[in-house]
Amino acid sequence: MTALTRLPGIGPKTAERLAFHLLRVPKDEALALAQAIEAVRRAIKTCGVCFQVDEIDPCRICSDESRDRAMVLVVEESSDVGHFEEAGYQGLYHVLQGRVAGLQGAVPSDLKLNALLTRLRGSAVAEVCLATNPDLEGEATAGLVVERLQAESSAIRVTRIARGLPAGSSIAQVSQSILADAVEGRRSFDGT
Amino acid sequence: MTALTRLPGIGPKTAERLAFHLLRVPKDEALALAQAIEAVRRAIKTCGVCFQVDEIDPCRICSDESRDRAMVLVVEESSDVGHFEEAGYQGLYHVLQGRVAGLQGAVPSDLKLNALLTRLRGSAVAEVCLATNPDLEGEATAGLVVERLQAESSAIRVTRIARGLPAGSSIAQVSQSILADAVEGRRSFDGT
Repeated sequence: MTALTRLPGIGPKTAERLAFHLLRVPKDEALALAQAIEAVRRAIKTCGVCFQVDEIDPCRICSDESRDRAMVLVVEESSDVGHFEEAGYQGLYHVLQGRVAGLQGAVPSDLKLNALLTRLRGSAVAEVCLATNPDLEGEATAGLVVERLQAESSAIRVTRIARGLPAGSSIAQVSQSILADAVEGRRSFDGT
Repeated sequence: MTALTRLPGIGPKTAERLAFHLLRVPKDEALALAQAIEAVRRAIKTCGVCFQVDEIDPCRICSDESRDRAMVLVVEESSDVGHFEEAGYQGLYHVLQGRVAGLQGAVPSDLKLNALLTRLRGSAVAEVCLATNPDLEGEATAGLVVERLQAESSAIRVTRIARGLPAGSSIAQVSQSILADAVEGRRSFDGT
């Protein structure tokens, strides 16, 4: 039961309910579930190019020749990839597997930043777009990546995803900092 | 009591409570409140330059020589001005007093759009930034303003406030359309 509480989103109460459920179902069913979990765990790999989690290495995205190979979106976690996929992003990714932590700006030793620099050398990548979270630690992480990128090469365009008014929101309801971002980040009007 | 329910944010229950309160307080106090309301109503003016509501005309912002007079932020309603003021915006405003409505794109006849074009002629304004709401009708309104501005003059830079990730949000929690906006609106990294 302690093992169950280690699952994300599962507290002691849910774990208890799950444990009782597993006791109630036929033994075969419980074993099948255990085997399924084991199979998933065994099938999971980390892509050696972009460091996202997938069942093949290189991952499906890095292997897909139809993707835009001139652009790399840098995200903090493998779970961020799915969100940008749903949003229709067509380029490649690089998963840092972490972020700069706390006020001290501690850098995780396993941040896949050197791997990014190595990957970019001699590649067809023309643009690296930073898509860390829009909070203090995400900003610090983006700052660190940019610093290293700029020290390495000036040929690659470094961009960041836009901060501003969320689609479908209303000016009357968003915070001052969102409005300040929206004015600061204003851009030329290119549509009708 | 019907008059009270016409106040914004006041439903029948609150109106009833207010009405009973006004019956309970000394007559002097109720009359003082009525006079205060009347005084505010009489003091309120619409600025003849930017069309926001204020107690003086031209309004305090249009009269303030320390504001950046090269930039005009175009908003839908007078109530939007306060939000951008709190966010630290330093330029001028233009209040359209409305928006394109519904799927038919009906244009309110009293939209202060001609007034904006007249105002810009021969002025020191170098940039007009559209700050309509980030929804369908706000977009249609922005499109209409841009069309008229571009037909009028090409010397003025037309921009729009940024759409993207709201400050303090997280990539895992925002909608697909917000992420799509954020990638589409990405910009050169100019931080550390």
